[in-house]
Amino acid sequence: MSRWISRLTLVWAVTTLSTAAACAQQPLRVTSPDGRTVVTVRTTDGGLFYSVDRDGEKLMTPSRLGFEFRGAPPLLDGLRITGSQRDSADETWTQPWGEVAKVRDHHNELSVDVEETGAPRRHFQVVFRVFDDGLGFRYVLPAQPALQAFEIQEELTEFSFADNAKAWWIPSNRPRMDRSEMLFSESPLSVLDSVQTPLTMETRDEHTFMVIHEADLVDYPRMFLAGGPGTESRTLRAALAPMHDGVKARERTPFSTPWRTIQIADRAEDLAPSVLGLNLNPPNVLGDADWIKPMKYVGIWWGMHIGVWTWSSGPKHGATTANTKRYIDFAAANGFGGVLVEGWNQGWNGDWIANRNQFSFTKPYPDYDLRGLARYAREKGVMLIAHNETSGGLQNYERQMNAAFSLYDSLGIHAIKTGYVTDTLANGDSHYSQTMVRHQRLVLETAAKYHIMVDEHEPVHDTGERRTYPNMMTREGARGQEYNAWSGDGGNPPEHETILFFTRMLDGPMDFTPGIFDILERSANGKPRAPDEPRVRTTLAKQLALYVVLYSPMQMAADLIENYQGQPAFQFIKDVPVNWERTKVLEGRIGDYVVVARQDRDSPDWYIGAITDEDARTFQIPLDFLTPGQKYVAEIYADGKDADWLTNPLPVDISRRDVDATTTLTLRLAPGGGQAIRIRAAG
Amino acid sequence: MSRWISRLTLVWAVTTLSTAAACAQQPLRVTSPDGRTVVTVRTTDGGLFYSVDRDGEKLMTPSRLGFEFRGAPPLLDGLRITGSQRDSADETWTQPWGEVAKVRDHHNELSVDVEETGAPRRHFQVVFRVFDDGLGFRYVLPAQPALQAFEIQEELTEFSFADNAKAWWIPSNRPRMDRSEMLFSESPLSVLDSVQTPLTMETRDEHTFMVIHEADLVDYPRMFLAGGPGTESRTLRAALAPMHDGVKARERTPFSTPWRTIQIADRAEDLAPSVLGLNLNPPNVLGDADWIKPMKYVGIWWGMHIGVWTWSSGPKHGATTANTKRYIDFAAANGFGGVLVEGWNQGWNGDWIANRNQFSFTKPYPDYDLRGLARYAREKGVMLIAHNETSGGLQNYERQMNAAFSLYDSLGIHAIKTGYVTDTLANGDSHYSQTMVRHQRLVLETAAKYHIMVDEHEPVHDTGERRTYPNMMTREGARGQEYNAWSGDGGNPPEHETILFFTRMLDGPMDFTPGIFDILERSANGKPRAPDEPRVRTTLAKQLALYVVLYSPMQMAADLIENYQGQPAFQFIKDVPVNWERTKVLEGRIGDYVVVARQDRDSPDWYIGAITDEDARTFQIPLDFLTPGQKYVAEIYADGKDADWLTNPLPVDISRRDVDATTTLTLRLAPGGGQAIRIRAAG
Repeated sequence: MSRWISRLTLVWAVTTLSTAAACAQQPLRVTSPDGRTVVTVRTTDGGLFYSVDRDGEKLMTPSRLGFEFRGAPPLLDGLRITGSQRDSADETWTQPWGEVAKVRDHHNELSVDVEETGAPRRHFQVVFRVFDDGLGFRYVLPAQPALQAFEIQEELTEFSFADNAKAWWIPSNRPRMDRSEMLFSESPLSVLDSVQTPLTMETRDEHTFMVIHEADLVDYPRMFLAGGPGTESRTLRAALAPMHDGVKARERTPFSTPWRTIQIADRAEDLAPSVLGLNLNPPNVLGDADWIKPMKYVGIWWGMHIGVWTWSSGPKHGATTANTKRYIDFAAANGFGGVLVEGWNQGWNGDWIANRNQFSFTKPYPDYDLRGLARYAREKGVMLIAHNETSGGLQNYERQMNAAFSLYDSLGIHAIKTGYVTDTLANGDSHYSQTMVRHQRLVLETAAKYHIMVDEHEPVHDTGERRTYPNMMTREGARGQEYNAWSGDGGNPPEHETILFFTRMLDGPMDFTPGIFDILERSANGKPRAPDEPRVRTTLAKQLALYVVLYSPMQMAADLIENYQGQPAFQFIKDVPVNWERTKVLEGRIGDYVVVARQDRDSPDWYIGAITDEDARTFQIPLDFLTPGQKYVAEIYADGKDADWLTNPLPVDISRRDVDATTTLTLRLAPGGGQAIRIRAAG
Repeated sequence: MSRWISRLTLVWAVTTLSTAAACAQQPLRVTSPDGRTVVTVRTTDGGLFYSVDRDGEKLMTPSRLGFEFRGAPPLLDGLRITGSQRDSADETWTQPWGEVAKVRDHHNELSVDVEETGAPRRHFQVVFRVFDDGLGFRYVLPAQPALQAFEIQEELTEFSFADNAKAWWIPSNRPRMDRSEMLFSESPLSVLDSVQTPLTMETRDEHTFMVIHEADLVDYPRMFLAGGPGTESRTLRAALAPMHDGVKARERTPFSTPWRTIQIADRAEDLAPSVLGLNLNPPNVLGDADWIKPMKYVGIWWGMHIGVWTWSSGPKHGATTANTKRYIDFAAANGFGGVLVEGWNQGWNGDWIANRNQFSFTKPYPDYDLRGLARYAREKGVMLIAHNETSGGLQNYERQMNAAFSLYDSLGIHAIKTGYVTDTLANGDSHYSQTMVRHQRLVLETAAKYHIMVDEHEPVHDTGERRTYPNMMTREGARGQEYNAWSGDGGNPPEHETILFFTRMLDGPMDFTPGIFDILERSANGKPRAPDEPRVRTTLAKQLALYVVLYSPMQMAADLIENYQGQPAFQFIKDVPVNWERTKVLEGRIGDYVVVARQDRDSPDWYIGAITDEDARTFQIPLDFLTPGQKYVAEIYADGKDADWLTNPLPVDISRRDVDATTTLTLRLAPGGGQAIRIRAAG
């Protein structure tokens, strides 16, 4: 029995009474273009609340809006709505690259003017945009005498749900774990403690899917979500990543927060491609930037993770001139656009995580001929990708950034992979604080000046920046392949990528680094790895399927290049594009399976990627998305006979068959398996 | 106890002893009777470790054993094995009541003698018992000069798993939430923070199920499990519930800890009935106690939860003489053994949670004629069940206990329902500390003296006490039906009971209080409850099935008795037994569904309970467990046409058909539905 019984009853009574009494302020409503989603904004007892209905049923119950400041009274009570404006839009814009070419921005907007009834009579707006696929809202604080420079202690935004939906989550704010590289859990939202976004939820009753996230995060901390108190609440609250002194944001009016977004879908399959956040970011400021080129790449990388090479110099140094030439030759011979080299620059020797300021971003190790290799790569039509690990030493990086990017530009190196391996910045600010958000935006803007594309590891999460800066290519920000090399928990379980697709991948591209073929990779003792050792927990066919399932405009073939020699399955990696015209999720259940079809941006060809968790599954896939009348050849990479992620991961059956829009393919996936299909237009 | 030692065991023992004495530390092994499970104990660098293999594969990797004391050096390093003893047993004993009549205790035992190599040269044993269905181990600290009175700061027991198995868990040790009434989450064990036991896990590779728990908890704190640090470890550590000063246990040698248990099964269906913990508790000390009688009961209870009545006196007081007579009459007329009355005793008025010492356990409110009602009940062949809410005021209860129990005994009241609604005891000790464990054992022993059965709410979890004290009938200790009346998260989701069966129910009986028929119960405003309000989230047929699925020897028909009037489905509640000869789990998937068959202890009849989560399901159930040649009539209570837990929960189709051991029944369960079947021997 709970102690809260009588208090709960009291709360209901009070809510009922005050709702009945507070008729002074008429609620404002704004509806999605299809009429299904209705957002209602109202004040109740001087508090400002929004709620959301879907198809006439409550989806979100009244959820409070407001701020708590340091050194100023909160903006929370004694509020009244003084006016409102409406707007709408219906336009379609084109992504320079992406998982879809065309994006429709069709929404209705309501701006609500709010003012304190008493001193200091501060005023602000909350702007709501309601789309068919969800909604976003942001606070806008205009310049005003009573609100100039200010410090945000808490953003008091609430997300209160009618249903105790099931959520797939990773924790935030656990001690010494300010990171996103974790496995997912599944809980009723009422027991969530502190979690990261995107937070994907499925209601228990109406089978509605919802995703809370944010968009257009520019100069503000990242948002987490906090549940409770207790384990019986359906309200999550915004929880901003703090600076070392506990202040969340230092701002000056006029100021707007990022958009708080709630994506809504009837089916899991409708969650992707997710464009709500892109629509809430400002358009491209770089114009037709022909230096931005999605690409596949190989690199000197996995060898360090499995202990064959080191980042630091010495006898096992991976980033040598000779080794890099091998990779450039391989890339050129197999149509890869880039070669990533990690450990090329000075600063890796010693404790590079503790000594965050020791990295040089211009000085190579003596055994790495930066200029010669850059020239060699250019001559072969390949681009070097410069690795810039900062270990969180932001100032050290910012000091060198212009010189480094200028050097890279001069050498034809137009892509960097940045890294921020640290839980906390040197001054104690959170990895996800306003400080880091500002820094990563500065890197992006500076890189654009030098025509450099950015692949960001240990990033702040993606909030749609790529719309405005299309050189923001891809990020890590989740548990990638590398955990299969060394993780203390044995590697990513077979279900991992089937959850990633419906959670992390909804915020943007991920540099997951698929394509490990040496799945039964040797241990330190030379034997195949034991089941409890870290290892790849997929079949080889599933590694291929990940190229289609997990979108990235920079997609790595992550294994040592010698492991691709003599492998017929490597052909799929050579063929698969990284830029798509259309994306269709054909089947999907969070944590269980995904089947996705994507059409190449540059040809009429389609590709299918199908993955499953530890259970074998069979799918019937009608190819009705193909062009009617057109003939195609399907090149099928399926799990071979008796394939099994644990005991027999390597067999891949490669076959071809003629197909057209009337064909239905049967896809059989092994336990922990997958299937990759190229559907090539014939004739 | 009939105990035998095999010749082979003797040979092992001799060999082991001489080996241990002769050379460096050879590992010791003990195997389950079926040879599938092997426990290995060894020292490595002075640390003591155990590991577990199953079918020749690692199940648990080396896991450390030891203690940290306050005011004494830890017992952790510099250890060596000095000897060992072996034993085995194969006996079958009978439960006086339970989910099965016969329990086989078949195990091999290894006692390992361990000593510090340096001063203070303390010595102890770790005793392992390995069964076919899992293992248990306990520390035994003999009396010795260097270890007399001592304070345990931490028990350093580890549970390290080869596989990053999926775990179903509820949190522990969250601030202000020291309770067990929570919804379950699902995570890879590597990301677990602090969780409660029983902790049920499913491996990702071999489909092995494991449950960590404890047995024979007498004078020691309850064990939680702590993961990490970080989110990449497959090791859980024992975390004992603390007293206010941080000390976990105050003990004196000779002393034994509770058993730490790891139940192992190949299939979810094999997890129940779970008897490992019972086998690790001492046998019945009460003998043939004919005053212990499993029973069904009704009570003055749900009315308080839905706000119709109050516990406290006043105009809505539930525990009135007239009301109680109504319940006694109903119980007598319908074959119920007991009537629970809450709010009968003085102390409920005012803040009874804060004022823990205001309860009287002997003085009734003036409008409750305790003696007259007890007599009235006796005359009708019904027993009053006395409610004893303590709100954690242990001393107040202990002071009155003998007087109260003596009074109850004199009135023929031989059952109590205790309650401990509080997160922390008055002195700051945890609800689950050694203090509470001692108290609850004292209540149990004292109750036995007065021939009183105990139903404990807000209990320390069940560790098999009912074997030793069969008057320990049932407990709460999980989210029960009451949350559907008032929980802030809207009530138990449809999957809840399908998880309970494979988690909480593995430790022992639960007083879940099924049988709410008024599923569309009215809100305060008189309208049917809205989907986001707290409500029962099952069909009515599922409420019936819970009587079979969720075992309790005291099983309530929880609704207001008027809600059973004119309900044909009530017949099943009247028929269903609370004491079983056999239990067979026919189908089960954690969080999805359970189908269980149980045979009545007192007749040849069988009963089937089937429940599902929010998905509709169909099962084909061969009745091959029935006696061949015997004719039966199946009385089937199925979800009616278009039944659905959310929109249409009430329709129940009641039908009969002749069946025998060759019949296969098709069970169709609605979303959130269930099915209850009585299979009555015919002729």
